[in-house]
Amino acid sequence: MEAEEEGARLAARLAAGGQGHVLRFWPQLGAAERRELAAELRGMDVAEINGFFRRARGGGGGGGAAGAPDGRMEPVPRDALGSASRDRGLLPGWESRGLAEIAGGRVGALLLAGGQGTRLGVPYPKGMCDVGLPSRKSLFHLQAQRLRRLQQLAEERHGQPCCIPWYIMTSGRTVESTREFFQKHRYFGLKKENVVFFQQGMLPALGFDGKILLEEKGRISMAPDGNGGLYRALGAHGIVDDMERRGVQSVHVYCVDNILVKVADPAFIGFCLEKGADCGAKVVEKTNPTEPVGVVCRVDGVYQVVEYSEISLATAQKRGPDGRLLFNAGNIANHFFTTAFLKDVVNTYEPQLQHHVAEKKIPHVDMETGQLVQPEKPNGIKMEKFVFDIFQFSKKFVVYEVLREDEFSPLKNADSQNGKDNPTTARHALMSLHHRWVLNAGGHFVDENGTRIPAIPRLTNGRSDAPPADVNANQSDRKESTGGGRATSSLAAPSAAGLRSGDIDAAVVAHVESLKDANDLPIQCEISPLISYGGEGLEKYVKDREFRAPLIIDEDGVHELVKNGM
Amino acid sequence: MEAEEEGARLAARLAAGGQGHVLRFWPQLGAAERRELAAELRGMDVAEINGFFRRARGGGGGGGAAGAPDGRMEPVPRDALGSASRDRGLLPGWESRGLAEIAGGRVGALLLAGGQGTRLGVPYPKGMCDVGLPSRKSLFHLQAQRLRRLQQLAEERHGQPCCIPWYIMTSGRTVESTREFFQKHRYFGLKKENVVFFQQGMLPALGFDGKILLEEKGRISMAPDGNGGLYRALGAHGIVDDMERRGVQSVHVYCVDNILVKVADPAFIGFCLEKGADCGAKVVEKTNPTEPVGVVCRVDGVYQVVEYSEISLATAQKRGPDGRLLFNAGNIANHFFTTAFLKDVVNTYEPQLQHHVAEKKIPHVDMETGQLVQPEKPNGIKMEKFVFDIFQFSKKFVVYEVLREDEFSPLKNADSQNGKDNPTTARHALMSLHHRWVLNAGGHFVDENGTRIPAIPRLTNGRSDAPPADVNANQSDRKESTGGGRATSSLAAPSAAGLRSGDIDAAVVAHVESLKDANDLPIQCEISPLISYGGEGLEKYVKDREFRAPLIIDEDGVHELVKNGM
Repeated sequence: MEAEEEGARLAARLAAGGQGHVLRFWPQLGAAERRELAAELRGMDVAEINGFFRRARGGGGGGGAAGAPDGRMEPVPRDALGSASRDRGLLPGWESRGLAEIAGGRVGALLLAGGQGTRLGVPYPKGMCDVGLPSRKSLFHLQAQRLRRLQQLAEERHGQPCCIPWYIMTSGRTVESTREFFQKHRYFGLKKENVVFFQQGMLPALGFDGKILLEEKGRISMAPDGNGGLYRALGAHGIVDDMERRGVQSVHVYCVDNILVKVADPAFIGFCLEKGADCGAKVVEKTNPTEPVGVVCRVDGVYQVVEYSEISLATAQKRGPDGRLLFNAGNIANHFFTTAFLKDVVNTYEPQLQHHVAEKKIPHVDMETGQLVQPEKPNGIKMEKFVFDIFQFSKKFVVYEVLREDEFSPLKNADSQNGKDNPTTARHALMSLHHRWVLNAGGHFVDENGTRIPAIPRLTNGRSDAPPADVNANQSDRKESTGGGRATSSLAAPSAAGLRSGDIDAAVVAHVESLKDANDLPIQCEISPLISYGGEGLEKYVKDREFRAPLIIDEDGVHELVKNGM
Repeated sequence: MEAEEEGARLAARLAAGGQGHVLRFWPQLGAAERRELAAELRGMDVAEINGFFRRARGGGGGGGAAGAPDGRMEPVPRDALGSASRDRGLLPGWESRGLAEIAGGRVGALLLAGGQGTRLGVPYPKGMCDVGLPSRKSLFHLQAQRLRRLQQLAEERHGQPCCIPWYIMTSGRTVESTREFFQKHRYFGLKKENVVFFQQGMLPALGFDGKILLEEKGRISMAPDGNGGLYRALGAHGIVDDMERRGVQSVHVYCVDNILVKVADPAFIGFCLEKGADCGAKVVEKTNPTEPVGVVCRVDGVYQVVEYSEISLATAQKRGPDGRLLFNAGNIANHFFTTAFLKDVVNTYEPQLQHHVAEKKIPHVDMETGQLVQPEKPNGIKMEKFVFDIFQFSKKFVVYEVLREDEFSPLKNADSQNGKDNPTTARHALMSLHHRWVLNAGGHFVDENGTRIPAIPRLTNGRSDAPPADVNANQSDRKESTGGGRATSSLAAPSAAGLRSGDIDAAVVAHVESLKDANDLPIQCEISPLISYGGEGLEKYVKDREFRAPLIIDEDGVHELVKNGM
């Protein structure tokens, strides 16, 4: 029989690689199980996997430098750093450059979307998550609309139609549901041919002895090869070729879970291009030494991300003369690459990278008894590469610092009382940002009595000096006064400088929410990415008007319980 | 009858003040109700209350400056600012000065503890809360033990016994349960005569027309007069006299709800004294423009706290050339006063302060129908003063900036999925601080397999570049390497500089927790304040030793699931 012949061929190949044990239970398998296992094994290069294992076990793990980086770290020098808060005057120029690139069709976006949402407790890819926004839009939906708006802005500015091709890396586990979701939603208004799906690779889990583990008698324990599997997948699926065919020269790579992500951010791209960089990382300031975030820095003069688990507390605590943490460039998985650099990575550098090894508790079939074992302590490894492993190969590396409240709120966990990085915090971060956009464009919110709500709504009882025996804190209803001084940017909300200072209400009478409201919420406010990418263009909808929340502004207009202030 | 005569006298006095309506239902009251109402009214100065109302309604609200402060704000100048992160070299000197003052018996602590825990959802004063620490200590307990340790440190340094008198302001609603709690716990080892309780005043709630509201037919709606009621209470109860009798010259005033509070912090006190200040505020950096926290700044050249509700978004967003928020001195209700300044405040300045007016929805008895009304919109006001209202009278005001993770984690809300300022965050903040103390003193934590746990434990999946399809992030088990460079201070944990760098484990093999652990917790670690006030003195317990969590170090020794590393 053909199947038996194939079984024999497989067995010989596996045995030659020291992995013959994976067929131990072959005689007990049914026909369907045998077909599936054989298919899995056909695609597997045992010799290569054994090589990965030897190198990963023996060497420095692919980060480039051997040994703990702790004593050899240097912070990012100022001349390699652009900052949305410290270089405001330069922002409009960077943005213009980025928009010109987009208009010329030279920018692509690349989404790392293999995540399954396991931690989040959902049985589908993270990008399909809806965090409870008024619009119920998913993360994919928000990102797609941001791309559409950006195309429109570039077109308006430069008078030529353009597109930003969107490359979406899934894993074997997420590919089908992701494709279906996009089809069902008609690609959220993007052209189908500009959305390119591809899959990252998988690798088997291994015991400490390098033997492949089975999760069932007829099934290998497989895991994706890390988000750094991107580079191998780029080559395997001809993605860099596709980029070249389309004329894409700059690629924005980002992770699916950040609800605030500025996809293909023209300021970031423009900054990197102005600096002549081939590789760049967008970061947010790490402000607490024990925040679990990796930091971008140099180790032995070479750029890399040092993980929070690799750093001693003494190093994490170091501060510069300005009081900031010395290593404060918090990595948010948001990177810039030139296509040329990606090509070099795929062709030359990626194969040099070793896998990182993660020891894990891996449920597996006992080879003697055939019983499933749920280990109590780590019993094996998974091998992964990381997206940032290639920073070391950059010839000109730059770092671009942005404000956390404007650009970073990842969705990682289910709602819980710890309250970190969950659907509630993601939803609040987006609504708080959009609330600020409305205020900065000259709009106002009023409560049910028509009283203006202060710019900073209560999330908690933040007034630390609140009268001790009275848990209700007060809020004045003073109107916006003059301010500004912020460098205006075509993609950012304008400052409130245009408002009249005569508008000030001198009374100190304060309006106080009831206790029930107090624990609540930012103001419910959501603006479709089709209307505004980064706060721009809202004056015509909101200036000098008063709104009651919830306020939704989308392509169908302004939806609110309205009390028009004029 | 005597009671009726008194009723008549009261009625005349109330009628003269335009408040005769509060006796409207007198004929319907029983004897007990009449006695209670009469007692309440006897203590009430109607003319004074009417005066408060007129001035509060008419004027600038007691903050000193009239009108919205927005356009007139200036940040704290560098020469008035001390910083625990930017002035590390000066810390040991400030601390020494503070300890010398404590040793000389010239320092007192004053606790604002009128809070009822309503928002927190507990039926007792906040200070009695236990946030679930391994020791189950309450906030009061932690603070008392910090005072005891500080007395001991000052005594050791200067060879003379000393005490820090502890003044505790309660409200009418919390006085009895607070006293009982202290008695029951034998003053947590403090001498009873050095713990001085006193009560802040109460004021009636008023309608917008200035009429006193009834919460029942026979009961006035009363509320505490704000934490700024402190100054009136200091005078009314002879507290400043008591301070002078004891020789107290410096007073640390703080709010009960901050689990990390450094009671009578010698560095803060020393800094203020070195600067010759009569008044100072401890602050933490405000890093997000919309964080609901008041900021210390100057308005028309005068220091004050501008509440987050009083500031426009444009002003809140302003940044300096260093990228920090321009107004970043976040008020945490943690102040320094000289006794001389407090005396001037009590005698001269306090009566000049107007009340702040908070419009509220106040349940009240309808004067026509006698029915209880639950208003849908604000129907009246409560009048309050704030502790920081007196900054304007300071002749030499200074600001002392500390690190949030070291000193500020307030308990305000019940646990919820928003996860801000609740028992979980307070507990985690304290355990995370104590975990850092142990590491900085040369101790290590190991997991159940004896593998060293990284310095930065996972709170969430913080590795943003985590492989997308694998929710388990990895953690290396690298040991602590060299670091340090931190100015040592007798009350702070030592740097890890003493550890050997040869200790580095070059393998990249990472230990990964199971998914179940991943969402969890800082390492469980609690150190009694009797052992360490600010991280000092832990080497003899932990240096070069390995511990399994939970680790508790208290006056009875070190309690752990121990695996002694040496």
